[in-house]
Amino acid sequence: MPDQLDVDVAVVGAGLSGLVAARDVLASGSSAVVLEARDRVGGRVLNEDLGDGKVVEVGGQWVGPTQRRLLELAQDLGVATFPTYSEGENLIEWRGSVRRYRGTIPRIDPRALAIIGATQARLNAMARKVPLAAPWEAPRAARWDRETFWSWMRRNVPSRGARDLLEIAIEAVWAVPSADVSLLHVLFYIHSAGRLEQLLDAEGGAQDRRFVGGSQLLALRLAERLGDAVALGAPVRRIEHGEQGVTVEADGCTVRARRAIVAMPPVMTARIAYDPPLPGHRDQLTQRMAQGTVTKCVAVYDRPFWRDEGLSGQATSDMGPVRIAFDNSPPDGSPGALVGFLEGAGAREWGRSTARERREAVLGSFARLFGPRAARPDRYIERSWADEEWTRGCYGCSFAPGGWTAFGPSLRAPIGVLHWAGAETATVWNGYMDGAVRSGERAAAEALASMGLAAREEALA
Amino acid sequence: MPDQLDVDVAVVGAGLSGLVAARDVLASGSSAVVLEARDRVGGRVLNEDLGDGKVVEVGGQWVGPTQRRLLELAQDLGVATFPTYSEGENLIEWRGSVRRYRGTIPRIDPRALAIIGATQARLNAMARKVPLAAPWEAPRAARWDRETFWSWMRRNVPSRGARDLLEIAIEAVWAVPSADVSLLHVLFYIHSAGRLEQLLDAEGGAQDRRFVGGSQLLALRLAERLGDAVALGAPVRRIEHGEQGVTVEADGCTVRARRAIVAMPPVMTARIAYDPPLPGHRDQLTQRMAQGTVTKCVAVYDRPFWRDEGLSGQATSDMGPVRIAFDNSPPDGSPGALVGFLEGAGAREWGRSTARERREAVLGSFARLFGPRAARPDRYIERSWADEEWTRGCYGCSFAPGGWTAFGPSLRAPIGVLHWAGAETATVWNGYMDGAVRSGERAAAEALASMGLAAREEALA
Repeated sequence: MPDQLDVDVAVVGAGLSGLVAARDVLASGSSAVVLEARDRVGGRVLNEDLGDGKVVEVGGQWVGPTQRRLLELAQDLGVATFPTYSEGENLIEWRGSVRRYRGTIPRIDPRALAIIGATQARLNAMARKVPLAAPWEAPRAARWDRETFWSWMRRNVPSRGARDLLEIAIEAVWAVPSADVSLLHVLFYIHSAGRLEQLLDAEGGAQDRRFVGGSQLLALRLAERLGDAVALGAPVRRIEHGEQGVTVEADGCTVRARRAIVAMPPVMTARIAYDPPLPGHRDQLTQRMAQGTVTKCVAVYDRPFWRDEGLSGQATSDMGPVRIAFDNSPPDGSPGALVGFLEGAGAREWGRSTARERREAVLGSFARLFGPRAARPDRYIERSWADEEWTRGCYGCSFAPGGWTAFGPSLRAPIGVLHWAGAETATVWNGYMDGAVRSGERAAAEALASMGLAAREEALA
Repeated sequence: MPDQLDVDVAVVGAGLSGLVAARDVLASGSSAVVLEARDRVGGRVLNEDLGDGKVVEVGGQWVGPTQRRLLELAQDLGVATFPTYSEGENLIEWRGSVRRYRGTIPRIDPRALAIIGATQARLNAMARKVPLAAPWEAPRAARWDRETFWSWMRRNVPSRGARDLLEIAIEAVWAVPSADVSLLHVLFYIHSAGRLEQLLDAEGGAQDRRFVGGSQLLALRLAERLGDAVALGAPVRRIEHGEQGVTVEADGCTVRARRAIVAMPPVMTARIAYDPPLPGHRDQLTQRMAQGTVTKCVAVYDRPFWRDEGLSGQATSDMGPVRIAFDNSPPDGSPGALVGFLEGAGAREWGRSTARERREAVLGSFARLFGPRAARPDRYIERSWADEEWTRGCYGCSFAPGGWTAFGPSLRAPIGVLHWAGAETATVWNGYMDGAVRSGERAAAEALASMGLAAREEALA
């Protein structure tokens, strides 16, 4: 990468959205460069090497059947998928004991389950009234944006057990406690995925399948195709912008371009200096859409021993620190891997502990669920995304109350020659890899159109 | 200012808190430098020149009788105070008509007023249960941090009129709609000021008096005393920190020091690059404590003509865009000045308009309140703090729901050799100039103590 570069479009961030945006710009015949702060591509999508050509993901990893753009990208890149391991019985640790169950409905208090069912139906019906491209135009947007999801549940879910199980579900999807997030945001997000079940389910939902070779393979293959258009270790510090185009200053190189696509979580976009400074409404948006808190913990064993006992590896717990677990073994089941998530409140609490304390607590969770054998993995891997300088949280960003209705229109709207990408700007599958792909495609088409150019048709299909 | 400098303490930000911190470090016999991004000192405290030695403030301006550290600072610096003009009758525009009233209680629906009185008493009683140094330890902290102030009002204030008037009050104090802010934060803030009346009142409250020569005179005189220890036009981009001290890189100069005091609103502290990166819990705090939204609008006339008609210049409106107005004339009443605030929702809405549209709407408000004469000022001044690159909002920062209980402990806690100042870190008069002064004194004492040095006694008295 030369120190100075002139291209049509400068892309900031080599996560999936930035890489896809650059792909589409190049496909249109224009030139592009991707500036990435880290020494790797993928953003919140990251493989960890297990040796012998095996990997496990410590970032986003699953794909669901309605995540069409992500599936098409994988096909295009020759990355195969395989079903998330779901054979056998699931576990729930609830009120002090561990029980087995089949399917998606754990065996807890039947009244609580009935209330959860009714609540899901009600949330799905409310969610359908939230326009994906303009949540602030929902008929009851003002009302729904003025309270937390917690206070809505408190009034509308008349069972402590149902609320506790919903809280686990909320933290599993948004990685924040239900108190952190606007009711309107929860409804938007449900609609963006389709229905609440789409967000929660393994089979048929967002956790349906995985990628052979790990999800980061998508980013790695995209980057391969982009070749020397990707600059690593080049954090962008400053963007000058005006009618004539942009000058993007990164450590070690400066790029002049006609347009910039900033492909980062909204909160991170505010850590770049802009000249002229961005308008207040855009900056204040970035102050109200915080990243969630997740630590992903993976224990690796010689084999997935839980399968012998008829267990799927999928588990839920009201005790924690692991509240959600999955079998995360490679396709051939060797080695065996369990992944446990510390999410929201738990991730924050355990984020202040030492790595050793966290490891012991996580393995303690696994042992209560899967037996004492689970306490002795061959390897233990964890990744706390809040501590990552270039991400600062996971899975994605949620609007606090008041955010969507006051600042929503600034989420995607270009500012002159600056365009915004990233999973948080997606209308469909917001916050997911599929949304990231869609946002990159949308931002590239938008930037190209603003230059009087058309994206290649198949990229927009 | 040389390019390279070695001092004991590097202070980032020349608002009141940073200047006071540097004053105390120097007073202890240690060396300090203050690095300021702007070409002026004062941060959110700023005079606008009216000519003939007269000024009007476009930032923080008032002082109340219990703001002891601010009053003592003014005395020490030889800056006099004078009472906010409060003679005559106040105005309220309510449900389409403008009425006069005396004292602090506007003449609206008596039932609404009775409910407001009871609500104030109840909030004051709840607020007293919130420990100022640790709001997350309040007996009901978890409960109070899980909902917005809006949803609390909705359940507990059984009068639309009362809620509407309280909403104006909330926006006048926090510069955000009641939906944006955690109930626990509102209670903390009330306790931090004493009682809700302290926040709202002119006479005897936070708007009691003003500074002769304008509030920025405090910052200007402090900076004078600090002499060449203040570097302007030196935005800090990067802070390396470790057991050996800090290296602070600003545009044009690099400072090595034993300690750094970062004296900025929390959200702005995250826009500096730290090496090593800050821990996740500190970074995620900065994502959950957004700046409010205020545009301060001042109309200047040859004389304060409203006084002739027995009006104080103080007004409240449920129509807007000006919801709160004050007589903001210099001490001798020449020229006359009215200040109108666009706050919270109104400031955001009007922030997307043109300057011309805003001016017309603001002068329209003044004319409805003070008569047609008010529509023709000699001069019109406005300041939108959300658009200011180095502040990004006003008056201060409010925790969204969930913020205090999850991240509160990271608000003031030093990270190694990094200390935090700024009005948002104060326990008493949080968010006010008085809190800024106290936070600067606390941070300096904390930094000095960590080096085994004592602050001079009078600074801590």
